[in-house]
Amino acid sequence: MSVPEFVITMEETLEFAERVHAGKSQLPLALRLIQNTGVRKRHVVQPIEQTLSHPGFEERNRIYEVESKKRCPEVIEQALANADLAARDVDLIIYVSCTGFLMPSLTAWLINSMGFRADTRQLPIAQLGCAAGSAAINRAHDFCRAYPDSNVLIVSCELCSLCYQPEDDGIGSLLSDGLFGDAVAAAVVRGSGGTGMVLERNASYLIPDTEDWISYAVRATGFHFQLDRRVPGTMEPLAPVLRELATVHGWDIGNLDFYIIHAGGPRILDDLSKFLDVDYHAFRHSRATLTEYGNIASAVVLDALRRLFEEDITLPGGTGVLAGFGPGITAEMSVGTWAVDVPGNSERIRLNPPSYLEPDFA
Amino acid sequence: MSVPEFVITMEETLEFAERVHAGKSQLPLALRLIQNTGVRKRHVVQPIEQTLSHPGFEERNRIYEVESKKRCPEVIEQALANADLAARDVDLIIYVSCTGFLMPSLTAWLINSMGFRADTRQLPIAQLGCAAGSAAINRAHDFCRAYPDSNVLIVSCELCSLCYQPEDDGIGSLLSDGLFGDAVAAAVVRGSGGTGMVLERNASYLIPDTEDWISYAVRATGFHFQLDRRVPGTMEPLAPVLRELATVHGWDIGNLDFYIIHAGGPRILDDLSKFLDVDYHAFRHSRATLTEYGNIASAVVLDALRRLFEEDITLPGGTGVLAGFGPGITAEMSVGTWAVDVPGNSERIRLNPPSYLEPDFA
Repeated sequence: MSVPEFVITMEETLEFAERVHAGKSQLPLALRLIQNTGVRKRHVVQPIEQTLSHPGFEERNRIYEVESKKRCPEVIEQALANADLAARDVDLIIYVSCTGFLMPSLTAWLINSMGFRADTRQLPIAQLGCAAGSAAINRAHDFCRAYPDSNVLIVSCELCSLCYQPEDDGIGSLLSDGLFGDAVAAAVVRGSGGTGMVLERNASYLIPDTEDWISYAVRATGFHFQLDRRVPGTMEPLAPVLRELATVHGWDIGNLDFYIIHAGGPRILDDLSKFLDVDYHAFRHSRATLTEYGNIASAVVLDALRRLFEEDITLPGGTGVLAGFGPGITAEMSVGTWAVDVPGNSERIRLNPPSYLEPDFA
Repeated sequence: MSVPEFVITMEETLEFAERVHAGKSQLPLALRLIQNTGVRKRHVVQPIEQTLSHPGFEERNRIYEVESKKRCPEVIEQALANADLAARDVDLIIYVSCTGFLMPSLTAWLINSMGFRADTRQLPIAQLGCAAGSAAINRAHDFCRAYPDSNVLIVSCELCSLCYQPEDDGIGSLLSDGLFGDAVAAAVVRGSGGTGMVLERNASYLIPDTEDWISYAVRATGFHFQLDRRVPGTMEPLAPVLRELATVHGWDIGNLDFYIIHAGGPRILDDLSKFLDVDYHAFRHSRATLTEYGNIASAVVLDALRRLFEEDITLPGGTGVLAGFGPGITAEMSVGTWAVDVPGNSERIRLNPPSYLEPDFA
């Protein structure tokens, strides 16, 4: 892999915070928030000096376009290869990204430049934030239910560092400055065949009256991430919803074989494991993503799923759940079993191994 | 209906252009472009003085939020009533809008404030521009294929006047300044039952290598609409695609009973009727939308469909096509038959009468 990448360690994040907030009252809070994230390092698309500067919304969005075009094709090719498909086999591209805004979306460029058919359906989603990865999986599932012979490509491009706002010093900004990282990921959902998670049932849930808990302020300087201090506590109302989804499916949420959970932050994972009564180890893939890359928004679930694939200890027939959380506050959830491709037994919708762009360490 | 609205006639548009471009070389071109649109009047959410001023991207987006919250509930309630459904019967809300950007999307607010279930799925689409209305219909169709008992609400909120950029004077801007109008519309797609267009087959098509023909430049001042002068000529490559869709379905595109076509501009309609070999009268609903409201982006197809419903001369079993065009350049198309609800014959997916917010004339 030839992509040059840039790394920010927690130590560097702490140093930058000491410098940026020097002498200000919020400094101790900022340092504590950063340490509590548990994020050891993050990867970003530009060197640290550029990452910390704000060249204006127009230039930021230009960088988004350049970087997304540079980085998406590689993960897409790998995801297609993992699913044993060619670009022409794809019927729908779902592109999710909340960190840059292009119209037309990158889907048009991908179709023109990567050999997808001109009749490939395009579904760009910009407004579901961190929940968009699991939402894309669920809409791909629905599409394959409607058209069982079809294949869906999911692309998640989250260049969170391009939404860094140096002027913001509210608690949500202080936290997010130490939490979010950049990532590009892709996955394929096949109507039949392949190895992976067989998507069996999906659901969505909006926690009532929490619209403004996670939001963007849209300004001349771009998207400003706003986070309410009540967000880390949202697993208490969401755990029963996940439990209910499993129950309707005939399963016990506390006793599944795999868990792919959005790593919004450390408390999200700690709380949810507590409320679902699963052991600490159950969320190991999400914890690894958070520790090594930070919160990479809609790409978290795809990266955690990649880690599950690579672990290679999940048995055919094993039961699991996948869940993402984002603005709304919205949860997008699915349950399914693990399957290894067996010819003649390929009628079910499968999420094949996703591809994730592991950056070179700078 | 009690919504106060503001009207700009073609005569007023010409006067404003004379004033804005006074003494500049582009004036004759601007006047000719405006006259050629055939748009007799347009409706906008603010009085003309505010419409022509630019208070900044942040304030524009704030107005978008206020106006969308003010105007969407009414058309949604009417669309639900037309489809004989309550809010709790809706399983998916597809919200399309390219003229303001909220995260979370308005779907979260709608669920919280209008009695939709907390498990209603949300699909906000911001990046398909004028093609988003027909794309929403097609994705609703797919969803109902996957879950035949479900109902999908489509909301289109296009406040195009909030993207007016006084500083822009390229040919695309001069044209769009005289072309686009504001509209809010809603429609319901039911998995079964109801009166309307039975959606039978849908397709998408991207004209190769035209990504930059219709696009937004994203700047500190917001979204800047960019239109290539080759766009009005795109019906020549798209007509065969529409013809092929009908042929695959066993129909002759030139001989259908109804045509719901995106009214991108007068030449789009003139050219397409010529290339499809249909008479001038066939596109009367799209022409009426264009003349009375201008190009109202993703809402055009919903408004043209409303006019078809109100005409009330389409016979059960009548064949038709619905097509929208937008950035990509993308066409989203569907074919289907007209059906009147008959108990016991309700297994097919139907697009029920849409609701359109007819503004009071100022």
